[in-house]
This record gives sequence, C-alpha cells and structure tokens, in this order.
Amino acid sequence: MSLDKVLAKIDADLDQSVNRLLDLLRIPSISTDPAYKSDCARAADWLVEDLKTLGFDASSRPTPGHPMVVAHGGTGERHLLFYGHYDVQPVDPLDLWDRDPFDPEVQDTAKGRVIRGRGSADDKGQLMTFIEACRAWKAVHGSLPGKLTIFLEGEEESGSPSLIPFMQDNAAELKADIALICDTGMFEDTTPAIVTMLRGLLGEEITVYGPDKDLHSGMYGGAAINPIRVLTKILGNLHDETGRVTVPHFYDGVQELPDAIRAQWQALAFDHAKFLGDVGLSVPAGEQDRTPLEMLWSRPTAEINGIWGGYTGQGFKTVLPAEAHAKISFRLVAGQDPDVLRGHFRAWVQEQLPADCRVEFHGHGNGPAGVMSVEAPAFDAARAALGEEWGKPAAFVGCGGSIPIAGYFKTYLDMDAMLIGFGRDDDQIHSPNEKYDLECFQKGIRSWARVLAKLV
Amino acid sequence: MSLDKVLAKIDADLDQSVNRLLDLLRIPSISTDPAYKSDCARAADWLVEDLKTLGFDASSRPTPGHPMVVAHGGTGERHLLFYGHYDVQPVDPLDLWDRDPFDPEVQDTAKGRVIRGRGSADDKGQLMTFIEACRAWKAVHGSLPGKLTIFLEGEEESGSPSLIPFMQDNAAELKADIALICDTGMFEDTTPAIVTMLRGLLGEEITVYGPDKDLHSGMYGGAAINPIRVLTKILGNLHDETGRVTVPHFYDGVQELPDAIRAQWQALAFDHAKFLGDVGLSVPAGEQDRTPLEMLWSRPTAEINGIWGGYTGQGFKTVLPAEAHAKISFRLVAGQDPDVLRGHFRAWVQEQLPADCRVEFHGHGNGPAGVMSVEAPAFDAARAALGEEWGKPAAFVGCGGSIPIAGYFKTYLDMDAMLIGFGRDDDQIHSPNEKYDLECFQKGIRSWARVLAKLV
Repeated sequence: MSLDKVLAKIDADLDQSVNRLLDLLRIPSISTDPAYKSDCARAADWLVEDLKTLGFDASSRPTPGHPMVVAHGGTGERHLLFYGHYDVQPVDPLDLWDRDPFDPEVQDTAKGRVIRGRGSADDKGQLMTFIEACRAWKAVHGSLPGKLTIFLEGEEESGSPSLIPFMQDNAAELKADIALICDTGMFEDTTPAIVTMLRGLLGEEITVYGPDKDLHSGMYGGAAINPIRVLTKILGNLHDETGRVTVPHFYDGVQELPDAIRAQWQALAFDHAKFLGDVGLSVPAGEQDRTPLEMLWSRPTAEINGIWGGYTGQGFKTVLPAEAHAKISFRLVAGQDPDVLRGHFRAWVQEQLPADCRVEFHGHGNGPAGVMSVEAPAFDAARAALGEEWGKPAAFVGCGGSIPIAGYFKTYLDMDAMLIGFGRDDDQIHSPNEKYDLECFQKGIRSWARVLAKLV
Repeated sequence: MSLDKVLAKIDADLDQSVNRLLDLLRIPSISTDPAYKSDCARAADWLVEDLKTLGFDASSRPTPGHPMVVAHGGTGERHLLFYGHYDVQPVDPLDLWDRDPFDPEVQDTAKGRVIRGRGSADDKGQLMTFIEACRAWKAVHGSLPGKLTIFLEGEEESGSPSLIPFMQDNAAELKADIALICDTGMFEDTTPAIVTMLRGLLGEEITVYGPDKDLHSGMYGGAAINPIRVLTKILGNLHDETGRVTVPHFYDGVQELPDAIRAQWQALAFDHAKFLGDVGLSVPAGEQDRTPLEMLWSRPTAEINGIWGGYTGQGFKTVLPAEAHAKISFRLVAGQDPDVLRGHFRAWVQEQLPADCRVEFHGHGNGPAGVMSVEAPAFDAARAALGEEWGKPAAFVGCGGSIPIAGYFKTYLDMDAMLIGFGRDDDQIHSPNEKYDLECFQKGIRSWARVLAKLV
C-alpha cells in the first residue's frame, strides 16, 4: 500500500528532515522586534525556495509588516489550505537559555531526544511536519497529495497586523474547502488532539484618576480619594465568592456544553491535580460548579494580567497617587460578542466610580471564540488517521488560548478550520529552552501523511 | 532693641541664606534608596561644616543606616534641642518634574517667589530656617541664642530605623528642656500653627503568591488562581461603603475629640472645599460621619500607597502572574498601638487568603500618635512670637502626617516637643515639583529669631 511507502520514506529520511528544520531554526525571525526584520524576510525566502523544490508555485508576498508565504501545488477535487507561522517569540531572558536560542541542536534528554531552539515547537517545527509529509509523498508518488495551498504568516507572535487585510485582498486565491492549522498540542503525551473549541479574547486597560497630582498620605489621607483604593474595590468585585464573573450580561448567550462533548471530555479523565500541581497549585479557582476542563476550555473568564499604581520601589513612600492602572483580559466562548462585552465591562466600571474619580479605557485586541463544526466528514477522517498513528483515538478538545486565525478563516473566507498539532505541555514555548520532541516531529510528519491520505 | 537688629540682619543676608539652602538641595540625599547612601553622608557632612562655622561643636555620627548630625553650642539656663531631617523623598515619577529635582532654583510664580527642588520644603528648607536664625543671632550678638543642641536625622523618610537606638545610646547628651521641631506647616497661607496632635504611622508591605511561575492566561486562566485577583479582593475590602476601615479592632481605644478642641477647630473655619479643590477633588473620602478636619487630624486611616503585579509595560501580555504586591500604610491616633494593629491587619489578610495562596508580610516603620501638653509656658511664648511675626495668632492644630520623633522625645528622653513649621499646603512635598515659598523661608527664619528671643 502506497501510504506505507510514504511512512517508510518519512522514517528513512528523518535525519535530512531534521537538518532542514535546524537550518530554518537558525534564522532569528523574531517578528515583534524591528531589528530582526531582514531575518523574517530571510525565513520567508528560505521557505519559498524549499517549497519550490517540491513543485509548489511559491512566493514571498510583501505586506506593510513581514511577508506572507503563499504556495500552490497539486491537483484534486478537494482543495486544502495549510496554515502555519514562521516568526518566533523574543528570547529574553537570554541568560536562562542553556545555549544560543538560534544555534539549535538535537539533544538526548531523560525524556527522549529533543530538538532544542527558539521556534522548534512554535511554530517552525510544527509547520515543517506538514511540508515534510508533502515531500515524502512527492518522492513516493511523484506528485503532491492533492490540491494544496500553503499559507505561512510572519506576524503571528506580534498580533498579525497584516493578516486580515491580506486575506481580504487575496480571498479568491486563499479560499479552499478546509483549512488545516498546525499550531496546537497533544491532549497529553501520547493522546493526539483536534481542537474544536477555541476561546476568544478581549483585552482592556483601565486607568483610574483621582487627585490631580500625587499627594502626601499624611496631609491628605482620609479626606482625599485614593485611586488605588477605588481600583482594588472595583476589581475586587470582578468575581463573586463562587468564582463567577460579576459583570452584568457577561454570561448572556453562553451555552451549556452539549452532552456528547461533555461525555467525551469526561472520558478524557483529565488529571487536574497534576495539571495544577505542576505549577504549585491544587484548587481549581474558576466557577465552583464547573469541572476544571470546562473552566479551561468552554467557560469564559476574567483575569487581571497587570496592575500598578503609587510607589512600587524599594522601601516605603506614603504617597496617595493621582492614578492607578490595570490590564484585564477576558477569555470568551461561543455566543459572546467581544464588542458588546467591552461595553458592558466599561459601564460596570463606570457605575462603581466615586464622584471625584474618572476612568479612561484603552482597548487592546479582541477576537471572538471559535467552535468548529465537527460534523464535517474531514474531522472523522482526521480523527481516524491520528488514531492509527498514535494507537489511541484522537480527542476533540477545547483550547483555553486564543488562535484568532481559525475565526478569521471562517469570517473572511467562509472556510472551516481543523487544528491539529503535536506540541507537548513541557515544550516551553514563549519561554527559555524551547524544544520540540523528535518523536512529535517524526510522528507529526507521519500523522499528516495519514490525514492527507484520507482527505485527498 | 537687639531682636530688631537680628531681624534686619536676616533680611539683609537673605540671598546668602538662599544660596546655602540651594547648595544643600543639590545633594540628592534620598534615604530609602541604597544608591544614594554616599549622598546622605555628604549632606550630613555639609551640615556639620556649616554648623562649625557658627561655633557649634558639630559631628556626623555613624549609625547602621545614615549618619546623625549632632551639634552643641551656646550657653544659658534653658537647654533647647532643635530637630530636623536632611534626607528627602524619592523623586519618581521623574517625568512629571519640570526640571531636575536636584538642580534647585528660585523661581517667580503667580503666587510669588519659590525655591523649587526636592527637599526645599521637606525638610531642608525648614531646618535651615532655624540654622539661619542662629547665624543672624550670632552675627549680631557674637554668640548663639542660648544653650542649643541641634539634632538632624537622615532616615526620616525611610522609617527612622536608627533613631530610637541612637537616642537611647546618647540619651544624656540629647536630653534638653524642650525639643523644637521644624517639619510641619502653616494652618493656612498666613496663619502660623503649632501642632499639638500628631497621627502615628504603621507601614506594611504584602506579597501574595499563587502559582510557582508566571503562567499563560490562555492555558491556565480560569483554573489557576491569580494573585492579583486575590490581592484586589482583599484590599477592595479594606474600607466599607461609609469609608470606615474594616480591619477588626482597628478603632479599639480611639477616643472622641474633647469638646474644647472641637470648638477650637470649628473656630478655624477650615475651608475643605478649597483644600480638596486645590488638588482637583470635591468630596471628602473618609468616614462619612466625620468632619474633614477630623478625617485629617484625629481619625485613623488606611491607604494603599503602592500596588503592582503582572505585566505593566506597553501593550498587552496575557500573563497570569506568580505574585502580586502592595504597600499599605495606616495613620494612627492616640489610643492605637502600632504593634497590636500590625497583628490585627496581618490576621485579617491571612483569613481572606484562598487555600492555594500564601502571603508574606514585610513591616515598614511604625510610630504611635502624639498629643502635646500645651499647658507648658513655652507654648504660650511661641504662640505670641509667631503672632508678632505673622500678624495673626498662631493656631494650635492637629497634623495628619506622622512625625514620630515627637513621641520618641517624650518616651525616650522625657522631653516635651513643640512643632513649628512654615510649609504651605501647595508645597507638593513627596510629589513632583516640590517648592518652598521664599516668604516662608524668610519669615520662618524671622519667626525662629522671635521664638528664641522669648525662650532663652
């Protein structure tokens, strides 16, 4: 059977595949830092050249930021689009890295062989699993596995400012039957996962102003309003005693989990004691009438991501400050409109403000939640393919984080997305000493070959 | 009359007096920040050298922190001790200063000439009023105005850790008939004041710890406890809806104002609308059943002086931080024991802590409230002298700030203290653009000459 030949070719050529990935990892394509602009362009060019060797019609397409890589190839009835991103996170604090983040290598560890370096898991290693699957397929069959468009972004780690305009400008070219996205993880070490539920995000920054200058708390304390007192009073009300968010209308439109999904999640037997224990905690802190997986995947949250005001240095200063600040984010689920919620949140803050204070709001990014239509046949096909590779059925899971690209494909290209990835919880993405397990890389390539065999 | 000659000399030499103060203001003696340790020593040395030129036997005396300046001089029946402090507050936020805080100058403003710079009012300008009065007296009389000890501290803005041990170790040397302290203000622009009631201070820093590392709020948000959420919840409870502090036992032992004092304060016709209006406020924010003067002078308070945690930079980062911090101070009145209250506060925080969090406390300085015995004849003499200089009788007032030294003189040296100062409400002490009115400096020097003439 020809799939077996493809899988055998993948295994036989693994060293070359790793070497190609190491080449790509050596390019420090940090998108958020303008100092690395030419490196981002270099990474895009590297991918274009590599895709051309597979017969793709590939090009690096300029944007106001970093270029997009777009490649078309193959033929077939069903048109698949693959999305990944070639940019990486900054590397600071650099002194916590055991080696140069951009001098990657394969290392033996107690838990197996790993590819160590910035971007190894997020997302260069993951995007190369798909390209290497295409390469092996081409080597065996002489052609690509169906009609493919490969779409690689260089601004994912810096807010994707060029993405929506580019998708709008090139909608006809990018529109396919389904999008495949490789930027997520396994459910746990040996259980593959397809993400079918993504939380959205709403970011807000608030500044509470009181007196028109910093005051001495001895001279004014007791008579003058303190903006930190006001801010803590307001934010201290953000959750009630049961962990529920108190902003009016916050839960409007939020649906209960369908019974089928609830049953499947129960079957996953999520070990929340280990999940929390790994970060020094033991008690799930969200809504007390929800399971930990619901807290993480299917329930909206409010978090204070930063707070500051007054004197924060060494020692003590009895200041009564003129202003106090906080950054707050909401993870959203299906049924919640970020723009509407922003209004509810602002009104809720405003209502709690004493007469002598005023508040300024600064909106940060927002994106709606995404829920995939798992009834589409591609999901069952992919689930079966992943199960064959890993020896365990793939889990349909939620993702607490926000991957807005899935929503954008739906909104701007009317295209469903399937998120399949092979990252593990200990990959240290966004952190020092990022790695990607060699097993995940190899079995990831094999997984894509199996998925493609079922989809084309 | 020789007092007239002294006053004339003060007026004639004003420019030199100002220049000496500017020299002292150029030394950035920020006591709370270890980076300025040598500058604190330099300020002490500067004062020692200056006092020596007046014939004082002056020295800079080492402590585990910053040095004390002690100077003895003159002869006479009554031994007067003068106290001031040469250290200053930190200067942040630096960008709100119109000029370098340590490059002082005399400026013309709509309200008259001012000496601008950190420490101009608190307390270098004030302490120099006494020294300049001595200088003019010496120039006219050839000797100092009586038997004097000058005692200048360098840790007043950082909790005075060395003060009590130093007073205990040097009690015989420092004990005098009465202490004069120049670190307070006028009642209003043209009414001089003698402070007879001082609030105490208790400083606490708390750190709430949650997860053992910073987490991604997408991966963990909803299930992992957020220390900022815990901190705002706790501190949001610090005051109830009527402005009352909620810490149990906080008001234990607090006395109602005696009728005589209440009548005198009512006669002062304090314009709280102007007091608050000057800093952009209108509504007294303390206990709603108290007058503004009670809130400021005779009622205890709780203020959050600083708060910080999570991401506080530009843009947004969806971090769920490992820890959150706050600095809190309490202003205390007679009947409140700072050590006992510290225990009540810590217990109150601890009780509100969820299972997965822990808290660390770091105590900053503390000092009890002070109430002076205004029956002593020196008070009447000083009141008369101030009335002659300013053309209005001096008010016996309370002080919202904490000047624990007055209590220490009583406790450790059995010596009454008289607090006379010439600051104005708009001096912006502890804030950017601190100033001291040239009029206050000049008339302050003249006031001390008049007070000394009556006391020696």
